[in-house]
Amino acid sequence: MRPVSLKDRVQDGATALGAWISLREPLLAEAAGLAGYDYVVIDMQHGLSDYGEVVPMLQAICRTPTVPLVRVPWNEPGIIGRVLDAGALGVIIPMINSVNDARRAVEACRYAPDGARSIGPLVTRTRYGTDFPSMANEVVACIPMIETRQAVDDVDAILAVPGVDAAYIGPADLSLSLGLAPAVDNPGEPFDGALARVADACRRHGVIPGIHANASLAGKRHASGFRMITVGFDAAPAIAAINADVTTARAAVAGEGA
Amino acid sequence: MRPVSLKDRVQDGATALGAWISLREPLLAEAAGLAGYDYVVIDMQHGLSDYGEVVPMLQAICRTPTVPLVRVPWNEPGIIGRVLDAGALGVIIPMINSVNDARRAVEACRYAPDGARSIGPLVTRTRYGTDFPSMANEVVACIPMIETRQAVDDVDAILAVPGVDAAYIGPADLSLSLGLAPAVDNPGEPFDGALARVADACRRHGVIPGIHANASLAGKRHASGFRMITVGFDAAPAIAAINADVTTARAAVAGEGA
Amino acid sequence: MRPVSLKDRVQDGATALGAWISLREPLLAEAAGLAGYDYVVIDMQHGLSDYGEVVPMLQAICRTPTVPLVRVPWNEPGIIGRVLDAGALGVIIPMINSVNDARRAVEACRYAPDGARSIGPLVTRTRYGTDFPSMANEVVACIPMIETRQAVDDVDAILAVPGVDAAYIGPADLSLSLGLAPAVDNPGEPFDGALARVADACRRHGVIPGIHANASLAGKRHASGFRMITVGFDAAPAIAAINADVTTARAAVAGEGA
Amino acid sequence: MRPVSLKDRVQDGATALGAWISLREPLLAEAAGLAGYDYVVIDMQHGLSDYGEVVPMLQAICRTPTVPLVRVPWNEPGIIGRVLDAGALGVIIPMINSVNDARRAVEACRYAPDGARSIGPLVTRTRYGTDFPSMANEVVACIPMIETRQAVDDVDAILAVPGVDAAYIGPADLSLSLGLAPAVDNPGEPFDGALARVADACRRHGVIPGIHANASLAGKRHASGFRMITVGFDAAPAIAAINADVTTARAAVAGEGA
Amino acid sequence: MRPVSLKDRVQDGATALGAWISLREPLLAEAAGLAGYDYVVIDMQHGLSDYGEVVPMLQAICRTPTVPLVRVPWNEPGIIGRVLDAGALGVIIPMINSVNDARRAVEACRYAPDGARSIGPLVTRTRYGTDFPSMANEVVACIPMIETRQAVDDVDAILAVPGVDAAYIGPADLSLSLGLAPAVDNPGEPFDGALARVADACRRHGVIPGIHANASLAGKRHASGFRMITVGFDAAPAIAAINADVTTARAAVAGEGA
Amino acid sequence: MRPVSLKDRVQDGATALGAWISLREPLLAEAAGLAGYDYVVIDMQHGLSDYGEVVPMLQAICRTPTVPLVRVPWNEPGIIGRVLDAGALGVIIPMINSVNDARRAVEACRYAPDGARSIGPLVTRTRYGTDFPSMANEVVACIPMIETRQAVDDVDAILAVPGVDAAYIGPADLSLSLGLAPAVDNPGEPFDGALARVADACRRHGVIPGIHANASLAGKRHASGFRMITVGFDAAPAIAAINADVTTARAAVAGEGA
Repeated sequence: MRPVSLKDRVQDGATALGAWISLREPLLAEAAGLAGYDYVVIDMQHGLSDYGEVVPMLQAICRTPTVPLVRVPWNEPGIIGRVLDAGALGVIIPMINSVNDARRAVEACRYAPDGARSIGPLVTRTRYGTDFPSMANEVVACIPMIETRQAVDDVDAILAVPGVDAAYIGPADLSLSLGLAPAVDNPGEPFDGALARVADACRRHGVIPGIHANASLAGKRHASGFRMITVGFDAAPAIAAINADVTTARAAVAGEGA
Repeated sequence: MRPVSLKDRVQDGATALGAWISLREPLLAEAAGLAGYDYVVIDMQHGLSDYGEVVPMLQAICRTPTVPLVRVPWNEPGIIGRVLDAGALGVIIPMINSVNDARRAVEACRYAPDGARSIGPLVTRTRYGTDFPSMANEVVACIPMIETRQAVDDVDAILAVPGVDAAYIGPADLSLSLGLAPAVDNPGEPFDGALARVADACRRHGVIPGIHANASLAGKRHASGFRMITVGFDAAPAIAAINADVTTARAAVAGEGA
Repeated sequence: MRPVSLKDRVQDGATALGAWISLREPLLAEAAGLAGYDYVVIDMQHGLSDYGEVVPMLQAICRTPTVPLVRVPWNEPGIIGRVLDAGALGVIIPMINSVNDARRAVEACRYAPDGARSIGPLVTRTRYGTDFPSMANEVVACIPMIETRQAVDDVDAILAVPGVDAAYIGPADLSLSLGLAPAVDNPGEPFDGALARVADACRRHGVIPGIHANASLAGKRHASGFRMITVGFDAAPAIAAINADVTTARAAVAGEGA
Repeated sequence: MRPVSLKDRVQDGATALGAWISLREPLLAEAAGLAGYDYVVIDMQHGLSDYGEVVPMLQAICRTPTVPLVRVPWNEPGIIGRVLDAGALGVIIPMINSVNDARRAVEACRYAPDGARSIGPLVTRTRYGTDFPSMANEVVACIPMIETRQAVDDVDAILAVPGVDAAYIGPADLSLSLGLAPAVDNPGEPFDGALARVADACRRHGVIPGIHANASLAGKRHASGFRMITVGFDAAPAIAAINADVTTARAAVAGEGA
Repeated sequence: MRPVSLKDRVQDGATALGAWISLREPLLAEAAGLAGYDYVVIDMQHGLSDYGEVVPMLQAICRTPTVPLVRVPWNEPGIIGRVLDAGALGVIIPMINSVNDARRAVEACRYAPDGARSIGPLVTRTRYGTDFPSMANEVVACIPMIETRQAVDDVDAILAVPGVDAAYIGPADLSLSLGLAPAVDNPGEPFDGALARVADACRRHGVIPGIHANASLAGKRHASGFRMITVGFDAAPAIAAINADVTTARAAVAGEGA
Repeated sequence: MRPVSLKDRVQDGATALGAWISLREPLLAEAAGLAGYDYVVIDMQHGLSDYGEVVPMLQAICRTPTVPLVRVPWNEPGIIGRVLDAGALGVIIPMINSVNDARRAVEACRYAPDGARSIGPLVTRTRYGTDFPSMANEVVACIPMIETRQAVDDVDAILAVPGVDAAYIGPADLSLSLGLAPAVDNPGEPFDGALARVADACRRHGVIPGIHANASLAGKRHASGFRMITVGFDAAPAIAAINADVTTARAAVAGEGA
């Protein structure tokens, strides 16, 4: 049975919503897998998990109704192959700034003749069935990040590389590259212009337009044409609550004493 | 230099507020240590961390301005000694239901002649100074949990055991024991009566009255006389946010399409 | 939705077949969960996994069509509570030799008023739903091991303890206790007599008769009335194959040279 | 004392047989080390172990009568240096498709003046003696994988690179690259022709001809001239047994009921 | 082949010298195993390793010329059985203060009929051979710690318990129990008297007299009749060197500037 | 509050002394952090820690009075970004042999517009404050290693690359590259000449001259102009003591018997 892919999740005009796991706690990945997200991303680049934690996190979500993705630390074929071997059904690859970068990314995600991924189906045959390798090139999503001015300038050429399934905008790095303060949103040109340019190119090339956002920005990004929008997080709410609760309680205790 | 103890935190009528770490992510312990809590508890009983994670979590918070505590899985001298050896400055010990239970708990927390804790100052001498062992019996908090009807019935005798520094009410287990649904609050007799009885006994015996609560309950518990109140959490807010964000975003995306 | 329990698996006269995971490799637990076993046991007593590995192994199998069980290292309430908190739907508890041992085992497995298990539903509410705690006493299997002469002698009294769901014979330890060489099978009285006595007592007390076996013994044990039979293993076949393959290949290489 | 090297194992026309460890369980590495294999490979590319597991696995086998090798995830000098520092006596390096790839591989395996490996003998001096660094260039095997059509086409030039000790054919990737289904054997030209071409080139260049196989294929590969043949595995037999045992037992139980 | 036991190491009047591993670094265990010690102890009580680290540490030293021992956290049959299952050839058990304590310790170390240890030879059959279980009762050392005034008072009865192989004095805890400052040596009665009393009792009961010491104390303890003397450590020298080197270097740098 | 940087430690002509952590034991990192070193380096290249251990080690030292640095395995932007994300305040990068190598190193260490580091402040905002990202380019030290003849030849061009904060000589690799035996010191030309050449270039370019040394060499290196000198170690003293103690004790025991 073919597992559900990211492409399946945007069929018929649907918009895929995702969660982002930065902490080393598989329970949070499992919670996200069960919460109703179309995809869950385990972040190896800016999150805290290394390969040893990614393997059980993928196990924790592989039979929840979500598509398991991993953001790898860098565009390096070793780690791309390993997380796909561990059962990820797609990889988000940072800092794809040129056609050459994109070609290397696709090569690492696809078996020959579409690419140069090395085959090792220990996990995926167990988990997804013995015929999974023959459908892997179809199911696995190759998702370059567009997050620099250079990448936006070359976005048409980058997205024209065969095998690119989605483009994923990293707004904080894009902001830095545009000379703005790093932020998930930076209203005004040039930021909005860059987003529009990427979304347009995606439409032209039949590539899923994706972006890192949050729940408040979901409507706005959707209206701008994005169909893969990350809106849920584990780390930020936990830390925010830890910080808020002590303040609330301190006030309550002080007030009560008055 | 003597590290700050739980007893220091309730000097001069102050109320100690605490955070509770259930997940296996030292960063959340560190965040709690920096957020302004008087104490941070790493929960080995119902949380997910085992000894291997507790050791680095204690390292992560030992120089933040908080008192590092551990809830051990059970009243067992091996694990009590090990978390104290790893630098915890107090242990919360589940299901102390009798004088005998309390005596065993104190024995495990104190060096002779006050108890029977075995000495092994590898970590604590490095972290707190070579003279720490001589002050450990004074600094380390022994905190039995009062969480059954039987314990409430015997609370005066339990708290009279020399070496008990605080009593910590587990409201969910206490509720179950009283025939109520498990909850952090269960207004009405017999729950409120049990809390009052424990708080009164604490006052009589010079023991810190503690309770598991949350930020909304802080004022109420303080008004009832509790001076050690756990109000911050890592797991619940993270999971709540994960669940809420997808709903919010789904609505936003749907609304926008209308 | 109530997860499937061990008791469900023996409904209507069915016999539950199980796999036994001794190695620290969650992929093998996952493979067992997918292979068609009624239950999978993660062995913490004689296997190599500690609590830190049990947590992700339970995640790996919780949504496969099997019942996740753990054999704990000993009849100790701390570890019984923790593996149940981590999502095990039953515990196999070694060396239950007396009514008192059995009572302590049941107490550790059941919330009040049926026992004294402490409540902490962080994982189980996430995984099995918010109403899981209210059904836990019904779903969770308490499975004492009968594996000494003393236990066989007292088996009627042991199985009469309310809350015992199954009896699980450990044939190697039982053999040792009977003065025989340790083995999974030891044809002849007194071994066969002991098995019969336990199976009979199970029938009288409405308790599932279980036994550690292997695939070759499955038919024989089933014929003797056992309805919970462990037949699959990870470690022994892996090690046997490692040993056999070098011999086979060495012979082939040598033969070819002739 | 110089530890035994891979080259020692093929002295005087001997054929080296190897085991392949894919799971994160050091006991299986140890079992392989004791079973009589000439070499044991810990697979970091398609296996599940990361560097944190490779270190203890190498400890587990370093004093068994086998040569410890590691397949690294990719031709990257950082990880090659680290596994050699951890005591591996050789590395198998994926996807060496050109002379330039081979030169980079050798550079990463050899200290100056033969290469550019950085020196850090913490483990190896402890394990193999203080004079080990001076013999490392001689003992450590540099083993490029030949697993694409391009590599086969350039195999003479690749194997002519000084410092290449063996060539290791990856038959599944080679099959893919040749347009065949991935398999450990793919009888018929072009697969057999490619194998012959590599084996011939090895003979011409004094390089050990190696190949990934299994116990059934050992004789055939040996007859084709291969002298380093991997025939033992941990993962496949374990998973096969898990799958087979439930079927066998289910049939036995059903049959018995008839 | 029977592995070398602690008893073998004191044959013919020899004195066994040991190393003590407190840190979570298997390389240090391996270094100790190769350094010439008769035994190496992995300390789970006051050291930092949990079961997950003990397993690979035992692998790291099992084929070095030393006897692998573990100090368990407490006299608890679960953990005693598990470290023996993992290949320890003896356990040092803290705080054995009575005949009853000693009987429980022996029971946990010996298979029936000598005790009640549960059998699970996954590791030991792989490592030491399939016949190891039949020799385990002979090879495995059961080593109670004598470290309180009460234990010294009852030492004759404790050492008379069949199955006790050695007595191991913990001088720091013994000092505390005697009202002295905790130290590895505390010249003068009552400390010296207690040591003499234990050594005498050992001689009478044919039990190996053991003690925690250091290299400087080795001669003195040997002269007092001890035949199992721990003299090597990992943690203390590492920390001492870290502290000394900065002082030395700071002085050198300051002096040079003068 | 801006954390203290390596540059702060060499203000006003001060010389920074450092410790080097090679073992996987966070307690040793903590001990070094408390011992008075200006910086502590966690060595991922030739040390045993992988990313999973580096994260808690950085937590262990982040609030001690030292500057936390990491030596990464190789000049690879993925791992450089990750250790900086985990809170390192500088990276030592091996084998920087050319201007191009140095440019890539700087790019990986600096946010735009000074470089191309990707932003992900999960840890650093929690630990160092929400304004840390804006000061990161100033605080984080980019420290190329100069450790080959080629690098010494090009040292002026390498150190002229904007963003290089220090040069760190690796004397063992430099020795190898110069045709000498690998050693921390190799008196005589060409070794001393190479050191002088690097130190001179540092002075010309306003770059901190750093070197791997030991406590005995500290004065000599300081006299040669080095201002960042690593003098403390965890592994070597631990292993030296383990080896020495058994010899000392064996002699004492033998002598006593005479």
